Amino acid sequence: MKRVLLKVAYDGTNYHGWQVQDGSATIESELNRAINEITHEQIEVSGASRTDAGVHARGNLAVFDTNARMPAEKFSYALNTRLPEDIRVVESSEVSMEFHPRFVDTEKTYMYRICNAEFPDPLKRLYTFFSYTKYDVDKMQKAAEYLTGEHDFKSFASIHTQAKTTVREITGIKVERADNEIQITVKGYGFLYNMVRIIAGTLLEIGAGKYAPESIKDILEACDRSKAGPTAPAQGLTLIEIKILDGTV
Amino acid sequence: MKRVLLKVAYDGTNYHGWQVQDGSATIESELNRAINEITHEQIEVSGASRTDAGVHARGNLAVFDTNARMPAEKFSYALNTRLPEDIRVVESSEVSMEFHPRFVDTEKTYMYRICNAEFPDPLKRLYTFFSYTKYDVDKMQKAAEYLTGEHDFKSFASIHTQAKTTVREITGIKVERADNEIQITVKGYGFLYNMVRIIAGTLLEIGAGKYAPESIKDILEACDRSKAGPTAPAQGLTLIEIKILDGTV
Repeated sequence: MKRVLLKVAYDGTNYHGWQVQDGSATIESELNRAINEITHEQIEVSGASRTDAGVHARGNLAVFDTNARMPAEKFSYALNTRLPEDIRVVESSEVSMEFHPRFVDTEKTYMYRICNAEFPDPLKRLYTFFSYTKYDVDKMQKAAEYLTGEHDFKSFASIHTQAKTTVREITGIKVERADNEIQITVKGYGFLYNMVRIIAGTLLEIGAGKYAPESIKDILEACDRSKAGPTAPAQGLTLIEIKILDGTV
Repeated sequence: MKRVLLKVAYDGTNYHGWQVQDGSATIESELNRAINEITHEQIEVSGASRTDAGVHARGNLAVFDTNARMPAEKFSYALNTRLPEDIRVVESSEVSMEFHPRFVDTEKTYMYRICNAEFPDPLKRLYTFFSYTKYDVDKMQKAAEYLTGEHDFKSFASIHTQAKTTVREITGIKVERADNEIQITVKGYGFLYNMVRIIAGTLLEIGAGKYAPESIKDILEACDRSKAGPTAPAQGLTLIEIKILDGTV
């Protein structure tokens, strides 16, 4: 028996998110099917991040246990021949039987992309949120600084969050223009449900001049979801990387 | 009667190219349909560049003549409500009745994108050619310098070209790495059928070490399509811009 860690990239457009749901195509169900075709075992992967419907990833992580003799490194090649082309296993490796990417310290990097032009860019329509509003990126960056560090992010969590504590630590937020896009890169040690999309929605309102960058302080303090901006649409969000911080792999 | 110039962006994935073909969805046929819905005239647009099936554009140009009273600038907004979301009119303006983007001096910019990683990137699969081969980008750039300037590009044209002369002028080629991509940007005053894709295919063979950068000189001199590299796949190619050079708009 060995445990295999997968690094998975996907275009979330055509999936109902990561998690298996009866009757809907999900990333997890496609991975389970492909793994079971190879191993002939009834394996279910366990993911690090259950991304929502429409959210994309360049580096989500998942583990599964198998008796297959195939070396862990070969699974990426074998799985990619059986997966649809909008899902790729970009790396596979053997980890200890105790290792689970959800239960070790990690730093996650998300990018929220806004196509900011007069009209949508057809080549980016699936991977960005489109808005023709004029945004002040400097104000967005200034507001982002107030979010960096350890805070109670209750105002930036879905009211459906099941987390025991809403205190999280953001290690950095960068807001940049690139081509016809605004890119918001958020790094942190853990995120609440919808947190990055609510941060994006709030920074966009600040960039549009709806309120001042400093008002982030009041929003955080309020611990009230209704004080923050809207949840930005799923298709603009990409989970870029999950970095394993401790040495338990 | 007035002539309207459209700047058109599209994801070519789901189309059989620009040009109207019986029974197939094309960019031109979608534009004609949308314009006719608005004007109730039997209008056919005339494009600057008849891109192939699968090729993308951020700035192709087309003109049409109409008696509609709608100001030319408003057509972009009106058309976008009637076009599928993989086609956008990003600008519309009135031009003189004599103006046609195919018959004035223009400088065109194309980008050929190669996703160069161990595995394809699902988020770029529709807009790049995937290759895991290791390429020497400096060699590709060096080879590209030999293509710059006025040459007989017969070796770099499809044998089906109907051009009277195969002499063209390339004003610049840039080969760069960006993220997990190699991007080949080609600018010139006119291109032969498949020319950019054959240039990309040839530069990739040079980057892979199949022959030296200097061999471009022999390939040009041979005036023989079989001496150049393969035609790189359509989905990696994007027509970025057509710049009108004279003052006839």
